[in-house]
Parts: sequence; C-alpha cells; structure tokens
Amino acid sequence: MTEHTVSSYDEELTTIAGRIAEMGGVAEELVSDAVSALMRRDLVLADQTIAKDVKLDELLLDIEMRNVQVIARRQPMGQDLREIMAAGRIANDLERVGDMAKNVAKRVIAMDEGLKSSTLAIGVEHMTELALAQLKAVLDAYTRRDADAAKLVRDRDSEVDAIYTSIFRELLTYMMEDPRNITQCAHLLFCAKNIERIGDHATNIAENVYYMVTGDRLTDDRPRMDETGVADKENA
Amino acid sequence: MTEHTVSSYDEELTTIAGRIAEMGGVAEELVSDAVSALMRRDLVLADQTIAKDVKLDELLLDIEMRNVQVIARRQPMGQDLREIMAAGRIANDLERVGDMAKNVAKRVIAMDEGLKSSTLAIGVEHMTELALAQLKAVLDAYTRRDADAAKLVRDRDSEVDAIYTSIFRELLTYMMEDPRNITQCAHLLFCAKNIERIGDHATNIAENVYYMVTGDRLTDDRPRMDETGVADKENA
Repeated sequence: MTEHTVSSYDEELTTIAGRIAEMGGVAEELVSDAVSALMRRDLVLADQTIAKDVKLDELLLDIEMRNVQVIARRQPMGQDLREIMAAGRIANDLERVGDMAKNVAKRVIAMDEGLKSSTLAIGVEHMTELALAQLKAVLDAYTRRDADAAKLVRDRDSEVDAIYTSIFRELLTYMMEDPRNITQCAHLLFCAKNIERIGDHATNIAENVYYMVTGDRLTDDRPRMDETGVADKENA
Repeated sequence: MTEHTVSSYDEELTTIAGRIAEMGGVAEELVSDAVSALMRRDLVLADQTIAKDVKLDELLLDIEMRNVQVIARRQPMGQDLREIMAAGRIANDLERVGDMAKNVAKRVIAMDEGLKSSTLAIGVEHMTELALAQLKAVLDAYTRRDADAAKLVRDRDSEVDAIYTSIFRELLTYMMEDPRNITQCAHLLFCAKNIERIGDHATNIAENVYYMVTGDRLTDDRPRMDETGVADKENA
C-alpha cells in the first residue's frame, strides 16, 4: 500500500461524512418546505418538495457504493468499520425522513380544498419545529462526533411523542364536533404521524452516532410511546 | 486463494440467501398474526407479534455483518456484488414489513374496547390477503431468481393500492355516519395504511430481485398511487 492510498483512506471517510451532511441539509429543507406548503396551502411548493426528494435517493445510492468500495479496498475493522456502518444506516434514516416530507407534500395536494382552517394544523406545525430541532441536533452530534449530544437527542424524543398523542386526540375531537372536518382531519392525522416518525428517525440516528463514537449500545432502552399507548422499543 | 476458500464463497452467498428466506418466513407470519389478532380481538396474539419482531432485527444485523465480511474478503464485482447489495436491501424491506405488522398489533391493543364490528375491518383483512400473496410471490421470485415473476409482482401492486383507496373512503363514510365510530376508524385507517405499505415493500423487493438477476433497472416506472391520488414513484 503506497502512502498515497493510505492518506486517501481518510479522504474517503471524510467524503462519506460530507455526503451525510449534505443529505441532512436536504432532508431538513424538505421537511420544512412540506409543512410550509401545508400551512400556506402552497401547491407549487408541495410539488417542488416531491420532486426534490429524488436527490436523497441519489445521495443514498452514492453513499452505499462508496461504503462498498471502502470495505472492499480496506477491510476496515473496529472503529473504522463502525464509522462506515453508521454512515450507511444514517443515510437510510435520512432517506426515509425525505419520504415522510414527501408524504406530507402529497397530502397538501390531495386536500384540494386546502386547509379550511389552519387552526387544525397548528399542532402539526409546532411538532414539526421540535422534530426539526431534533434532526439538526443529531446531525450536529454526528459531525462533532459527540456521543453525549446524541444521547440527549434520544432522550428528548418523548417530547415529540407527547405532542403527537395530544394532536391525535385533538383531531379526533374536531372530527366528532363536525363531520365536515372528517376528511381533512384524516389527512392531518397522517401528516402528524409522518412528522412523529421523523422524530423516531432522529432517535435512530442518535443511537447510531452513539455507537459509532463509543462502541457501546445505548442501554436503558427508552420505550417509545405513541398514541396507541403501547410501549415499543422501535416504532419507525 | 485456496480451493477451499473459493468453494466457501458460494457457501457464504447461499447462507445469506437462506437468511433472507428465513426473514421472509418470519415477516409473513407476523403480518398474518397481526391481522388475525385484529379480526379476532386477540390481545395475546398481538403481544406475541410485537415480541417476535425482534427476530427480524437480529436477522437484519446478521445479514449486514455477513455482507460486510464477504465484501471485505472477496471484493465482489458485477453479478456477485449485485447479489450482495440486493440481499442487504431486501433484508431492510423485510425488517420494515415486520414493523408494519407490529404497528397493527399495537393498535389491536390500543383499541381496548375491541372492534365493535368486524365489518369495519373486513376490507383490511382482504387487502392483507393480497399483500401477503405479493410478499410470498416476490420471495419465491428471489429464491428462484426469476426476473419475470418479480416484474409481475411489481405490476400487481396497483391492486393493493386500489383496495386501500376504497378502504380509506369507506372508513371516512363510517365516521361521518356515526361519530362513535371515529376513534375506531382512525385506528383502522392506520392499520390499512400499514398493510398498503407492505405492498410497497414487496414492490421494492421485486425491483431489487429484477436488478439482481438482470443487471437492468425496471424501467416504465409504474407510478404508485394511494388515496391522496398523487402519483409517486416511491411511496414507502
């Protein structure tokens, strides 16, 4: 192995980490745009969000192929292998975050009458802010290789879950009050669920960052709860 | 490379394919059990389904580690590499099928009064039969390396989507008819969505089998539709 190939090993890992950061930026943007489109009844923005999701699929493929090449060329072990495996898993979660955003954007288009009252969706907007804060925090923890910050993100997911449960109940109440709300609220139920799952993906990423940095699994499995009230260790 | 290591290469690929088949069997069982638990209001079976999902997580990890080892040891290219990448992706989809089953099982427990009338859920049961048939067919196509069979599965997913759309509308009608149906039907909406997504995962697997066998991507991207009526190439 020449000196050149040795030094390019770090470059390869840095490139992969850079692609993850790029995916994170695109995913955040899609989530933010999808929910803006929902609140402002902006069909053009919804369409753009759906179209832009392809970027995440491409980046995921790119990261997968780079991982295979690094594994084949370097036979990494220990910390290096953990890093590559973590990158693959985090890329998968980010691609799914994009799918969640796309699902919300598709419902904006489906609700062709538009939101009758954005009051119904204010809870969803609030939950989105929290889920996005979680996503930003965990991507930051990945970049800084900060296991403690990752653990904090994991522990805070219960806040997203609690808001989701309260939105679920609130939307059912609106449905019961006036049957004309039913179709719209059914779509909003799914939007809320999609945002709640973004929180779950942030948690998955947090667990992968923690393992990548420390080599230990986060124990004390915080049971995830949702509106079903049924505890679950992995709810995505 | 000794003759022994050459022959053990095929063994490694065979072991991985065997693990995929094992995952497929567990995933089918979980889906079938979750929907049986829903129809029969069987809380014990629902609990067992949730507990058994761990098996899929373990098998996914096992397949991921085997893939890494094979890539590191053999530096596979072309067909061999496609096979290993396909196995990894198919394992991911099967793990998510298990998550869908688990979500249904959790709602069985959440609907503590039980289904007031199983009429409401008959559509879900019917859709499940179709989704399970798709899953069985695609796993069979994987085992037999049958690209044509995989393509058929992909083309048939529109049937699952059509049933889902009709269930979505039907459940909204029940909600409008009697507000006392709202909570139950909201849970059933999510159950139906989970089953519809199993169809999407079968489609993903079909596309991976086709690519694994032929080296070509399935073109003529069949747009996936759901109750939002918004076309989408990837809706999982």
